[in-house]
Amino acid sequence: MPKVFFQPSGQSVEVIAGTSLLDATRMAGVEMDAPCGGDGSCGQCIVRIDSGHYETDSLGILPESAAKKGYVLACRTQVLDSAVTVEVPELIGRIGGKFVEDEDVDWQIHADLLTDQRPGEPLVEKIQYTVPQPQLEDGLSDLDRLTRCIEKDGERRELNCPVSVLRSLAEALRGEDGNVTVTLCRTTTSDYVIDVEPGDCTARHFGLAVDVGTTTVAVQLVSLSSAGVLATRTDYNAQISCGLDVISRINYARTPDRREELRIRVLSTINNLIRKVAGNHDVKSDEIRAAVIAGNTTMMHLLLGLNPEYIRLEPYTPTVHEVPLLSAEEVGIHIHPRSRILICPSVGSYVGGDITAGLLIANSVDERESLSLFMDIGTNGELVIGNHDFLITCACSAGPAFEGGGIEHGMRAALGAIEQADIDPATGVATVRTIGGGKPVGICGSGMISLLAGLYRTGWIDRAGKFSRTRSSSVIRINGRRAHYVVVPEDESGAGKAIIVTELDIENVIRAKAAIYSAISMLLQHVGVGMERIGTVFIAGGFGRFLDLEQAITIGLIPDIPREKYRYVGNSSLMGASGALISRRYRERMLELSRRMTYVELNTSPEYMHQYTGALFLPHTDMDLFPSVRAATSQGKEC
Amino acid sequence: MPKVFFQPSGQSVEVIAGTSLLDATRMAGVEMDAPCGGDGSCGQCIVRIDSGHYETDSLGILPESAAKKGYVLACRTQVLDSAVTVEVPELIGRIGGKFVEDEDVDWQIHADLLTDQRPGEPLVEKIQYTVPQPQLEDGLSDLDRLTRCIEKDGERRELNCPVSVLRSLAEALRGEDGNVTVTLCRTTTSDYVIDVEPGDCTARHFGLAVDVGTTTVAVQLVSLSSAGVLATRTDYNAQISCGLDVISRINYARTPDRREELRIRVLSTINNLIRKVAGNHDVKSDEIRAAVIAGNTTMMHLLLGLNPEYIRLEPYTPTVHEVPLLSAEEVGIHIHPRSRILICPSVGSYVGGDITAGLLIANSVDERESLSLFMDIGTNGELVIGNHDFLITCACSAGPAFEGGGIEHGMRAALGAIEQADIDPATGVATVRTIGGGKPVGICGSGMISLLAGLYRTGWIDRAGKFSRTRSSSVIRINGRRAHYVVVPEDESGAGKAIIVTELDIENVIRAKAAIYSAISMLLQHVGVGMERIGTVFIAGGFGRFLDLEQAITIGLIPDIPREKYRYVGNSSLMGASGALISRRYRERMLELSRRMTYVELNTSPEYMHQYTGALFLPHTDMDLFPSVRAATSQGKEC
Repeated sequence: MPKVFFQPSGQSVEVIAGTSLLDATRMAGVEMDAPCGGDGSCGQCIVRIDSGHYETDSLGILPESAAKKGYVLACRTQVLDSAVTVEVPELIGRIGGKFVEDEDVDWQIHADLLTDQRPGEPLVEKIQYTVPQPQLEDGLSDLDRLTRCIEKDGERRELNCPVSVLRSLAEALRGEDGNVTVTLCRTTTSDYVIDVEPGDCTARHFGLAVDVGTTTVAVQLVSLSSAGVLATRTDYNAQISCGLDVISRINYARTPDRREELRIRVLSTINNLIRKVAGNHDVKSDEIRAAVIAGNTTMMHLLLGLNPEYIRLEPYTPTVHEVPLLSAEEVGIHIHPRSRILICPSVGSYVGGDITAGLLIANSVDERESLSLFMDIGTNGELVIGNHDFLITCACSAGPAFEGGGIEHGMRAALGAIEQADIDPATGVATVRTIGGGKPVGICGSGMISLLAGLYRTGWIDRAGKFSRTRSSSVIRINGRRAHYVVVPEDESGAGKAIIVTELDIENVIRAKAAIYSAISMLLQHVGVGMERIGTVFIAGGFGRFLDLEQAITIGLIPDIPREKYRYVGNSSLMGASGALISRRYRERMLELSRRMTYVELNTSPEYMHQYTGALFLPHTDMDLFPSVRAATSQGKEC
Repeated sequence: MPKVFFQPSGQSVEVIAGTSLLDATRMAGVEMDAPCGGDGSCGQCIVRIDSGHYETDSLGILPESAAKKGYVLACRTQVLDSAVTVEVPELIGRIGGKFVEDEDVDWQIHADLLTDQRPGEPLVEKIQYTVPQPQLEDGLSDLDRLTRCIEKDGERRELNCPVSVLRSLAEALRGEDGNVTVTLCRTTTSDYVIDVEPGDCTARHFGLAVDVGTTTVAVQLVSLSSAGVLATRTDYNAQISCGLDVISRINYARTPDRREELRIRVLSTINNLIRKVAGNHDVKSDEIRAAVIAGNTTMMHLLLGLNPEYIRLEPYTPTVHEVPLLSAEEVGIHIHPRSRILICPSVGSYVGGDITAGLLIANSVDERESLSLFMDIGTNGELVIGNHDFLITCACSAGPAFEGGGIEHGMRAALGAIEQADIDPATGVATVRTIGGGKPVGICGSGMISLLAGLYRTGWIDRAGKFSRTRSSSVIRINGRRAHYVVVPEDESGAGKAIIVTELDIENVIRAKAAIYSAISMLLQHVGVGMERIGTVFIAGGFGRFLDLEQAITIGLIPDIPREKYRYVGNSSLMGASGALISRRYRERMLELSRRMTYVELNTSPEYMHQYTGALFLPHTDMDLFPSVRAATSQGKEC
């Protein structure tokens, strides 16, 4: 079989002739971005062939000059019958870019938002019982006596006790004079026995909250005996190399093998994080006996190995919204195999358990009757609007612009990303701030918003996002109908070349913000109220963390309402999962919220397209909706 | 490692020095009787060493003459550092002795006793649903729509749906316009989904009834769509070579390895039988989705891999009486892995689910208010007495005499066993009938009863079971205090030597029958009524099949009451399991019966010892209890 060598890593793999280079990278363990899922459309899996025979049809996508130098798209190139050496370029913003924070990150959990922290009814309980010793007279078996203890307070319930628990029961009950600790999961109608151990083991009792994002995965270790968070860790979802957004992942998952690959990939990320949080706190994986997992509907399907195909196809019907309780063993999570796993319920194909969990957190701090808006902005934007009487929700596809996708020098919010820019009104020159403070290497989502807001306020771009053709600036380069803006000149850049923003980039950001703003408009129109009626806006998710409200309002991403109405709630998905882990009241409320939410499908609504078109300007075609922006920009023009 | 060769089979095995020959037989797959569980007390694992070094302490048990010829007990002999060749004698009545019948045996099931055969609520149901196609408007997931179909008739219930079912759900619901067959197990409070398949698959739906006896295992294949029995097969329990009775098995099971061995052994027997019944009827193992298993408490513990030790130790407390529903996968039964397995509930350490299941059958034909007695006689005798108001039960250890154990020429009820004997009153000479009609090779339990009854009626033995020292017979050989009786002379025997009965054999049978009769007395005394109050006596189990009522009454094994009150119910344990498999009403009644039964422990009762002593005569010390025997023997003496 022909062998493929990858440079500069030195990794190699033997493959059968006809294998695509993209598949070869996966088999060799070489990480490679393929945001489109490998169908040749994104052009990101570019590699250079140093030697060997190959067959490619990358030409239509790559310029001829690149092809002459041996550049090909890995997904469109097949290995023939001889060894091939492939050079994989080091890309900016490549997977593995370090997270700014890693452990115990403040913004991950606003612990004060969890108002109900009384321990006592976590998803899985550890209860200490003294089981009477066996008696000749009563004829009760070991399980009978244990059951009587468990049922003491209540009516007769269905008891599920796996045979693996029964096998150690006799010894456990006779070990310490009947003193045992029972690990138990109680649902409304039945009890599931996870373990029975001799002695009092209630002090060490742990659970996990897991947030499975399309891009990042967060795992939080919680002490269930004290309802305290011990550690939080995040990492990139190892599925990233199979597609950047949920649609690409669904495309990638078109065969059972691919689905299994995606399942294994996200499990490896989760299990690695578990090892880290547990190892750092001397917790054995066996001592973790419950987990609550939140994620969007596609992520949940891929985690469970379900076919996500029908999420993408009209009428957008997922296999499951409310997943029955599962065991860690059947899911593949490396904690106690009989642990119970609760998956946060989803509402629609594009409003998942992450939103339900997040709303739980917003809901728990907003018990008033006023209208509130919950937004989670990322590649997809999910919105919930409502009060105690109703909840409606929708999702919109913002595209990858806010995560650096489709932007010439876009990148994720990693070290070196430009996150903030000040534009000199007179010269148009930008002064930038990067994440980590080092040399700039690219522009992340909040950096793009900052740039657009600044350029618009200073009049260097117009309401359509076009650079001024009347005023001249050393950093705006006009070339006929095309124009671009130099954010950082080559000599100050850490990317080896100038960092620029093109009009195409600006268009992409405007499209993304229009998708979100028009979704908000749609929801409000649906319930027949105006923007001014919103009492609180909860902004959730990692993207919101770097968001400058004033700038976001300036470009028309979010409504122009009093700034004090906005509240950033961090990774509310993870927090909601954590809340559901420790408290029955949260679990019940989460289920109730998911059932109360009415899902509005925007994909098939002509009115949404109308609203969207209106929002394709800075900040909007209807300036009455953005009074503060109008005031500020008139002022700007005056000076 | 030294090698052990077994002759005449030619099997061999490499073992570490110090391994016992008994363990070596098991490792090599050589079947070997060790009724005592290998503690050197039964003397049955006798072998002859042909060559090689060994160390033995069999001398105290085997006569010196045997030791000189190289005979040793395999359990008391260790292999040293060189190869050993061992001759394993072909024993009469050895495991593998053929069953008289094998398939579709009449006596296994008295189908007419199953009065409630309406299909419709088997343990696992297959239901055909038409699930509505997905709609954009309703926002229902695949599982939501399925759940609504399942719940249509009733309230919201807990739905358990393993992830393996979810994985194929989307395709199943879209395969045949929503036409699916759901395999479902409904309990009082929850539904468990075993499978969802496209189309109508309700016609092929199968279940198993299994009777796990200490000696034999019976498996019955049932069509759950028609509630009809398709096939029944029986085989020896492969645990036999680890001990003949439950106490020996418990002794054998003293380490986790041994417990695992016993579990694997009985599973191999069950799974072989499943392959046979299914294969003969073109049923795939995957089409079998429910099983009900009945067996004594020890058999159930060993099947599930539970430690049976505490069954044997005061206060005789098993791990479990009512086993929660399990899956075929966790039990190790080779049918659909998600099949539900119901274990028939037991009552006490020595009154198991086989008795509960059997009583279910007796109860279903005896709805009257009169007192009835249910008896299952084997190595252990289990008794239940009661009516609609009360049920009390006990167990007694009859010892292995009725199964041929502890009897010089005893054997199981296999081909060549003497099952019936007529004694010439004048000469004392026996005319025998064998199972299968061939040359006699030994005496089975019913043969012993027949011999004793005949010898007693004709006056050749007295009420204490001693041979007449006053009359002489050519077949009674008196040697001082010892005497024996030649049943079959050497030249007519198929065993290569004369078949005899010793006074010691007779003593063993008298002890066995006394154990059972005194247990009946005890139960009646417990409720304060006399023998005459018994309306019906149900005799269950394989042993009862060959039992001659008149002879059994003559020796005092069962009460001397009108013969028409006796009813033989066959393998009622298997039938009860079958009933529970096909009908909810049977399952509920079985659970109710097991909970209603009061277990009386005889082991610790001084009164039982008193009753037992009184029964150590033919038929009893109190002849008033056996008026018909008294009449017949007076008559006999007259002629």
